[in-house]
Amino acid sequence: MTDYAPPLKEMQFALDHVAGLGAVVSLPGYGYATPDMAAAILEEGGKFASQVLAPLNATGDRAGVRLENGVLTTPEGFPAAYRAFVEAGWPSLQFDPEHGGQGLPWLLSTAAMELWNTANLSFALCPMLTQGAAEMLALYGTEEQKRVYLPRMVSGAWTGTMNLTEPQAGTDLGEIRTRAEAAGDGRFRIKGQKIFITFGEHDMAENIVHMVLARLPDAPQGVRGISLFLVPKYLPDGAGEPGERNDLRCLSSEDKLGIHAAPTCVMAFGEAEGAVGWLVGEENQGLAHMFAMMNNERLAVGLQGVAIMERAYQQAVAFARERIQGRDEATGQPGAPIIRHADVRRMLLTMRAKTEAGRALAYTAAAMLDTARRHPDEAVRAAENALVEFLTPIVKAWPTDAAVETASIGIQVHGGMGFIEETGAAQHYRDARILPIYEGTNGIQARDLVGRKVMRDGGETARSFLARLRRGEAALAAFHQDPAIAAIRARLVDGIDALSEATEWLLHAGKDDPQRPMAAAAPYLSLAGTVAGAWLLGRGAAAARGALDVDSGSADRAFLEAKIATARFFAEHLLPPAIALRDTIARGSDPILAMPVEAF
Amino acid sequence: MTDYAPPLKEMQFALDHVAGLGAVVSLPGYGYATPDMAAAILEEGGKFASQVLAPLNATGDRAGVRLENGVLTTPEGFPAAYRAFVEAGWPSLQFDPEHGGQGLPWLLSTAAMELWNTANLSFALCPMLTQGAAEMLALYGTEEQKRVYLPRMVSGAWTGTMNLTEPQAGTDLGEIRTRAEAAGDGRFRIKGQKIFITFGEHDMAENIVHMVLARLPDAPQGVRGISLFLVPKYLPDGAGEPGERNDLRCLSSEDKLGIHAAPTCVMAFGEAEGAVGWLVGEENQGLAHMFAMMNNERLAVGLQGVAIMERAYQQAVAFARERIQGRDEATGQPGAPIIRHADVRRMLLTMRAKTEAGRALAYTAAAMLDTARRHPDEAVRAAENALVEFLTPIVKAWPTDAAVETASIGIQVHGGMGFIEETGAAQHYRDARILPIYEGTNGIQARDLVGRKVMRDGGETARSFLARLRRGEAALAAFHQDPAIAAIRARLVDGIDALSEATEWLLHAGKDDPQRPMAAAAPYLSLAGTVAGAWLLGRGAAAARGALDVDSGSADRAFLEAKIATARFFAEHLLPPAIALRDTIARGSDPILAMPVEAF
Repeated sequence: MTDYAPPLKEMQFALDHVAGLGAVVSLPGYGYATPDMAAAILEEGGKFASQVLAPLNATGDRAGVRLENGVLTTPEGFPAAYRAFVEAGWPSLQFDPEHGGQGLPWLLSTAAMELWNTANLSFALCPMLTQGAAEMLALYGTEEQKRVYLPRMVSGAWTGTMNLTEPQAGTDLGEIRTRAEAAGDGRFRIKGQKIFITFGEHDMAENIVHMVLARLPDAPQGVRGISLFLVPKYLPDGAGEPGERNDLRCLSSEDKLGIHAAPTCVMAFGEAEGAVGWLVGEENQGLAHMFAMMNNERLAVGLQGVAIMERAYQQAVAFARERIQGRDEATGQPGAPIIRHADVRRMLLTMRAKTEAGRALAYTAAAMLDTARRHPDEAVRAAENALVEFLTPIVKAWPTDAAVETASIGIQVHGGMGFIEETGAAQHYRDARILPIYEGTNGIQARDLVGRKVMRDGGETARSFLARLRRGEAALAAFHQDPAIAAIRARLVDGIDALSEATEWLLHAGKDDPQRPMAAAAPYLSLAGTVAGAWLLGRGAAAARGALDVDSGSADRAFLEAKIATARFFAEHLLPPAIALRDTIARGSDPILAMPVEAF
Repeated sequence: MTDYAPPLKEMQFALDHVAGLGAVVSLPGYGYATPDMAAAILEEGGKFASQVLAPLNATGDRAGVRLENGVLTTPEGFPAAYRAFVEAGWPSLQFDPEHGGQGLPWLLSTAAMELWNTANLSFALCPMLTQGAAEMLALYGTEEQKRVYLPRMVSGAWTGTMNLTEPQAGTDLGEIRTRAEAAGDGRFRIKGQKIFITFGEHDMAENIVHMVLARLPDAPQGVRGISLFLVPKYLPDGAGEPGERNDLRCLSSEDKLGIHAAPTCVMAFGEAEGAVGWLVGEENQGLAHMFAMMNNERLAVGLQGVAIMERAYQQAVAFARERIQGRDEATGQPGAPIIRHADVRRMLLTMRAKTEAGRALAYTAAAMLDTARRHPDEAVRAAENALVEFLTPIVKAWPTDAAVETASIGIQVHGGMGFIEETGAAQHYRDARILPIYEGTNGIQARDLVGRKVMRDGGETARSFLARLRRGEAALAAFHQDPAIAAIRARLVDGIDALSEATEWLLHAGKDDPQRPMAAAAPYLSLAGTVAGAWLLGRGAAAARGALDVDSGSADRAFLEAKIATARFFAEHLLPPAIALRDTIARGSDPILAMPVEAF
């Protein structure tokens, strides 16, 4: 394992020059946030992440969690780190001051969340889920629920979970069987079993607030008959402190490929008289409430992809600088570190370019979310909201697929050492693999993108996204004298054209046969994500070129030139195969639909 | 874990209609082999693989190996399975009858080896390495060495290892420090430490024959000063039976990401008086001798990629048929198995198409190897040999990169269940990851392809390979009335054009700057492998079409139509992004070389 060095300069650049922090902090209600504060948050957060969380990443992976007599023990150091995390106030950045939050933009909390996830993905899942549960409660909870639970969840004193999945109900939540019955006193009794409950039980906080999907008696069948319940591990007493133990427990914790330090629980609710719960929001609207929150969780999972990539990249670069093997390809000198080999640099640049593109996507979506919530002009809010909804499946899926590939390349850079667990590269490869699966598989993201975001409004949002891409591409014209930027722009034009054609194909093909767009959905998402990545890296490259033109002797010169080189690499290496997916989209559904199910 | 069903029909089709078993068995010296015998070998081998080896795959992964007081214990069942493997005569298929072998073509032993690897990759490594060591001994050993060792290694009674790597000498074997000194009695004393020695110690056979690279005193520096030594665990006594224990031992066994049942040893030679060894071949020619053998090992590793893909595919298909989730996309019926979703079929077809292409590549290279060794016409032998050398890095790298991707898709098809170790999909993902690394990383394969195979002879072999591809493409013209075959041919033409242009670019660019072809080597290999896969799947599709045209009511109709559909999917989905690498190759070295090493 190498140490984690928070990439503060990279993050600051992405905030300032890609996502547009300046515009975000000037939104109404964010007056408290300033660029200086952003720098201070990154600086302090980086210290906490690298000094407290990162050292527990490999040890937590090796130790895993332990369940004995219903008591779930997280790896050594986790409870103390969590207490320190809460004491430092990190959980509350983006919450409303009314509930004890710090009222900062999503964009800033997104950058902070990158730090936690990069340092320790397993650990970071706990605050990530707590935050999601708290947001849902802020939106749909009763005043009483908010009064009792929200401040404790915002502070992190109590953690939160999402209880959706059951053995027969994963992607298809309409199949949920957990039942809830009114107890007559405003409370409900919940009975049923849930699986894949991350941090469903643990020893890091004094209470756990489960958000549980269940069916009321006589509820309509399917997704329209699901309600949402708040079910705490300990029922709050009159003072709001954890009181009586609720009738729920963790039956087992899964033996998983990765994220070993994050418990993944089978939860039993109501084995005796029924777990006590309270309805959140409206009856039978549970899924709609859950999805309002899940979009933000999806953005957060995309950020986890960025996190794994950053960590894998740092480790691979460190190894490639140290590992001596062979001759320098340029000079012929023996005893060269392998970073002198062009193919190793190709691998590292692939990792780096995907990391930067993923970060650019995740931060940009966060900035759009801030704008969609706070901009004074309603039309701007609506437009940004449509775009962020369009981008959500892309931000969830593209960086998480990229994380699996990048972690795999990270092992490859290490050669044989990469396959040895002690090296640490393998952990990233194992941990990364959950990201394309949870919070809606990437196949579901692709269906969402094509079905709900592209086709439902007849292509209106997709075309407005394409228009934004074209404006971004046109802005590169100002730097046409830089051959690197000219090359980026040329490839980007090809990419936008391909995405535009693929979009029109989807809209047309869907009229004849609804299966055809679904067969093309995953390549379409891959194309859209890669073009969007090139667009944002191009924006960063232009900003870097502009800064260099103003001050060619800048102390940041090497950093800024690397920005341009990385964006060009993305455009020349990663964009062309994605552009080729245009043909796959247009022709590829035929061979899929031609193959009978029985023939597999 | 699902059971392993040996894909006998798929294998027989690849033997007969892609690799050309008929031509191979008619080569001189293979008269003993017949198509009937091939079918019987697959049938019996399939039983052994599925009934004896496959059930130990998951249990071996969970148990791992144990080293206590120098005694290395393999997982329960492994020693008994190995004894049964030896008793059934499976290790000796392709060896010369003079040494106790069965004199069968490489092509058939390749098919058998696929069975062992698919059933149990860890187990299969032991016979694979033994076979490599035996081949080397058959080529370079003295008569006495061959008399004592070869029959026992051919039968599998004794196993073999390759001792190359040292901590400072991985890819760069010129850095080897292990020393050998003549003891005056024709024997040598070996002292040094080796790492990453697969099956360097185990409890499955009565003796282990280590092939060790070491330096003689006053040997020239670097790769020209390395000699090869045979160093047995037990010195054979007068009767050739295991006698005195040699001065060598396993110091430790690595904790690895995958292949847990295969020991990966740190070996100490000569901690006391020096391990006793014998020179194999000529002094200072050890690396050349090793490479003569290593080419075959590289083909075998490519086959391991096929094996992992086949197993992952079978498991994913079984899950996709059983798992009920959501509505049938075509009919709208609820309660559909997920294989009814087009995107799931896209994932399964990707897995299937890569598996078939990898098998076609591995079998075709094996058939070429048989032809290169046995064809009566020297010119044909030379031409086939050049082609098999050209194909070797492709056959090693393409299916092993594909195996990592395919195993990853296999997890994805399972959704959350795929991340749970008990499901078994994760083992393939972990096991697969070693394949792009060992026997020369895939980056090294790409350098070999570009530097030694394409550029060294000025493109002659590459152009003759391209000519063979064009003949294959032209042969599809006979079936132009089948739109699927016409589509395959159209894409294949694009692919061959792209590979041809990329080849000429490499030859040209290398004149200016030797770094530029190296920067483009990996994308070049990827392009070449994908085009070669499309070529061979096209050949199979044409054979299937031909068979259907002769007998449209064939009992094999569904099987033959699936062959065509899979080849078309490969051409429409997997080939276009590879063709786009033409641009990456031609333009992509600039941004790599533009990024200073310090800027990472």
